[in-house]
Amino acid sequence: MVNSKPLLLLSNDDGYQAKGINVLIEALHDEYDLIVVAPDGPRSGASCAITSAVPVSYGTVRQEEGLSIYKCSGTPVDCVKLALHTIVPRVPDLIIGGINHGDNSSVNVHYSGTMGIVIEGCLKGIPSIGFSLCNHAADADFSFTLPFLKKIVKSTLENGLPYGTCLNVNFPDSNEIKGIRICRQTDGVWINEFAHCEHPRNKGYFWLTGSYKNLEPSAEETDHWALEHDYVAITPTQIDMTAYGLMEKMKSWDWSL
Amino acid sequence: MVNSKPLLLLSNDDGYQAKGINVLIEALHDEYDLIVVAPDGPRSGASCAITSAVPVSYGTVRQEEGLSIYKCSGTPVDCVKLALHTIVPRVPDLIIGGINHGDNSSVNVHYSGTMGIVIEGCLKGIPSIGFSLCNHAADADFSFTLPFLKKIVKSTLENGLPYGTCLNVNFPDSNEIKGIRICRQTDGVWINEFAHCEHPRNKGYFWLTGSYKNLEPSAEETDHWALEHDYVAITPTQIDMTAYGLMEKMKSWDWSL
Repeated sequence: MVNSKPLLLLSNDDGYQAKGINVLIEALHDEYDLIVVAPDGPRSGASCAITSAVPVSYGTVRQEEGLSIYKCSGTPVDCVKLALHTIVPRVPDLIIGGINHGDNSSVNVHYSGTMGIVIEGCLKGIPSIGFSLCNHAADADFSFTLPFLKKIVKSTLENGLPYGTCLNVNFPDSNEIKGIRICRQTDGVWINEFAHCEHPRNKGYFWLTGSYKNLEPSAEETDHWALEHDYVAITPTQIDMTAYGLMEKMKSWDWSL
Repeated sequence: MVNSKPLLLLSNDDGYQAKGINVLIEALHDEYDLIVVAPDGPRSGASCAITSAVPVSYGTVRQEEGLSIYKCSGTPVDCVKLALHTIVPRVPDLIIGGINHGDNSSVNVHYSGTMGIVIEGCLKGIPSIGFSLCNHAADADFSFTLPFLKKIVKSTLENGLPYGTCLNVNFPDSNEIKGIRICRQTDGVWINEFAHCEHPRNKGYFWLTGSYKNLEPSAEETDHWALEHDYVAITPTQIDMTAYGLMEKMKSWDWSL
């Protein structure tokens, strides 16, 4: 029997037991063949980190018709690399990271383990999408995102994505979503990033925290604006980080030693 | 006494004891005030990862006139965040990551902890440069890079960098460097990424390894071409990852639910 369903590789950075990825699995299981290779525990803020100092391993969590779930000891990017190297029976039609518990719009794209998955998929030439909900809660309600999520998956499979590009999709934490907006990455900055705790014998310790400051709150074409106004924000993202404008400028700097 | 030397914040991903950062300190100590906040051990491949599940801490390694060295329990990005939050007496004039033991050109920009430092500095609006040598050895010879490195630091302080841009500088492992080239990021891909080791009771374990495949070996404007031809490769890099071309295309997709 030829299996005609598209094959999707799923991962996340909250771990295979997180609600977000299990909602994702349930939403896509009927229409697609799914292979899930997700971290064995939380890896929030893992970015595109890779594990080289220690080996990585994986194990089977569950297998049924059209769905195989594995947990992996590594980072989100390790999960994708290991899945492509040794687990998938053929090149997946699509790689999906998420659904992440928390906002990955704006500058968060750089810290996000969810987007690490997506960038890795993109680096391997496979269409890749990250889905995130602007709600960190472990029991967040993802239900209202699903019609949009399914539509975005279907459209991406139909249209494809050009080489070197991928999608960063963020859902507002709102059950009155107004629609989808195609956005650019917002300029923003994290401030007041640490909470200090005293220790009797040294400089103490610091918990990462902070507030996000939007540097262009009225720019309607940005992802953060879309989310603040109850739109789904799709931010097309690319792996080429070259600053072409600066490249031309720097050629005229004096480079004599 | 007013101190008129520029203040440089240094970090790396190989740890404060690595040769590369100590060569960097020695090369810049006379001309600049230096604050070094580097990981307490190796963090290769840390990308822009941040630590949120556990707190981070730091301690003094050494202090002398114009030079303070601290070690930090976190990732390279944590080092920068913590330094800016609580260690530096004023906003640094420049942030430098490196000198990294190993190549950070092409797609490696995404995995690199050295470039994590640089991207974090850039996100904070501070001119930032990553320096890497295409040699992984712990005792690599960095001496021939120093005239170029000093020139690049001086030129960057003089010219500044536009908001949202930073520099990814890679040195060829060659003592016959031909000069400096301003480059774009090479399209490349890592293949055969794992070495499998048997285990008697499970699927075994996997060491990250692999070969880099240049997808455009004859493109003379790329960083990898420059390095292969014994040039210093400066790749101007930006934190805006928006794929603007795709953004316009996707607006015409059918988004009806």
